[in-house]
Amino acid sequence: MSQKTFMERALELAHASSERGEVPVGAVLVDGRGKELAADGNRVEQYCDPVAHAEILVLRAGAEKLGTPRLTGCDLYVTLEPCPMCAQAISFARVRRLYFGAKDPKGGGVENGPRLYDQPTCNHHPEVYGGINEVRASRLLKNFFSARR
Amino acid sequence: MSQKTFMERALELAHASSERGEVPVGAVLVDGRGKELAADGNRVEQYCDPVAHAEILVLRAGAEKLGTPRLTGCDLYVTLEPCPMCAQAISFARVRRLYFGAKDPKGGGVENGPRLYDQPTCNHHPEVYGGINEVRASRLLKNFFSARR
Repeated sequence: MSQKTFMERALELAHASSERGEVPVGAVLVDGRGKELAADGNRVEQYCDPVAHAEILVLRAGAEKLGTPRLTGCDLYVTLEPCPMCAQAISFARVRRLYFGAKDPKGGGVENGPRLYDQPTCNHHPEVYGGINEVRASRLLKNFFSARR
Repeated sequence: MSQKTFMERALELAHASSERGEVPVGAVLVDGRGKELAADGNRVEQYCDPVAHAEILVLRAGAEKLGTPRLTGCDLYVTLEPCPMCAQAISFARVRRLYFGAKDPKGGGVENGPRLYDQPTCNHHPEVYGGINEVRASRLLKNFFSARR
């Protein structure tokens, strides 16, 4: 699958999250040979788990599949700029490349807020490619939140 | 159990982590009535899970027990200053008070590095009490790392 297609898949998973009443974020983890390792959407409410963001779920699933907590060489596609929790988890997991959709001035931790990968205390950070399918990714979020207000 | 005793228990769990070859950090989650909800140590290697820090494990276990991802009114005791991932998870989980042991200039995210709770984008932060049993908590870590170098 191409980069665009992985992001398309992540967008579908974000949409499915929204249908379940979760904040619409989707993520796909891909191994070094371009094979999908794990894919999921946000499940905080469903799992009663404050850390069940899409990114955390696919990092955990991928690590379990590979039998190691270090996902060296893997790439992550996510529809929204990761929050500081997920950004740090991506760093701990040694993800190679991070592709994300909409930027998140309110909750993001990569290009916004604490800009975790720019911190001198950050030991590993992925190559970052932001703003992919940005309009569609942010429209999903806007529709979700405007329907709840 | 008093505050000191919860931290004592966290220190024992940190010591047990170290015996398993994990970075020695322990955490105890306590409900609003002072009853222990969950207690664990770091299990990143054992679980092949990059996010299996002591704090994440007890937040997840506590949320599962209470049937909600929001641990409003709960307090967390941890032997080391939480990293940015855990600090943000503690914020998402709406923890009331955070008591931590050793400060962590290299990897901490509360009083060091990105100082997450001071970020204007942080929606909730716990009351923070750092430096509890600091000497013992940092000795555990120093012994662990010096034995591996």
